[in-house]
Amino acid sequence: MHGINLKDKFGKFTEQWTPKIIGECNGQLIKIAKVQGDFVWHDHEKEDELFYVLKGTLFIDLEEKTIELNEGEMAVIPKGVRHCPRTQDDEAWIMLIEPRSTKHTGNVKSDLTDNQQEKL
Amino acid sequence: MHGINLKDKFGKFTEQWTPKIIGECNGQLIKIAKVQGDFVWHDHEKEDELFYVLKGTLFIDLEEKTIELNEGEMAVIPKGVRHCPRTQDDEAWIMLIEPRSTKHTGNVKSDLTDNQQEKL
Repeated sequence: MHGINLKDKFGKFTEQWTPKIIGECNGQLIKIAKVQGDFVWHDHEKEDELFYVLKGTLFIDLEEKTIELNEGEMAVIPKGVRHCPRTQDDEAWIMLIEPRSTKHTGNVKSDLTDNQQEKL
Repeated sequence: MHGINLKDKFGKFTEQWTPKIIGECNGQLIKIAKVQGDFVWHDHEKEDELFYVLKGTLFIDLEEKTIELNEGEMAVIPKGVRHCPRTQDDEAWIMLIEPRSTKHTGNVKSDLTDNQQEKL
């Protein structure tokens, strides 16, 4: 049991769209990721997904609208809602909270599907 | 479905040790609180509890040691572990993640037990 410094954790990797597990709480994994450019459209049938932005700006395209999240802002994408996270310019640093069962790209197969989600 | 700005949310209340619900994700409530001084020793029999510090410094006394959390740092207190959150000086702003079932002071009764946990 110890404190976890998020900036320190972000200093330990450079790869993008590859969430790293930094903690667990009631079956939910706490993950961090560096992201830039477009992800893929997908949904998670049974899991909500929380996005919290620590640096930069993350856009989450939904079918009806786009959510813009700047530093210090968060959003919860409910299960079953198709979404596509992306950035416009610079890399963004994000924290994700989702169950251990959540697949990176939901039921969509892409080059990003199997990105390793190692413990940091 | 929309972005939630944590600083805006903190601007909406002044009372301390009274977590406000700002979101929900897979049955976990996302709460924020302003805290200062000592809370009470307690544990949560069945629920882990995540603390993330957004401003100031939070100390979490455990029976064996004290965890110090500064801005941008987090810790998960596993179920069953007795703990007492406190600050030393200034108010701290924290985010908490815990299940809807979690009681504020666990099974310990105190003046703080029934602090309202309204949705913000």
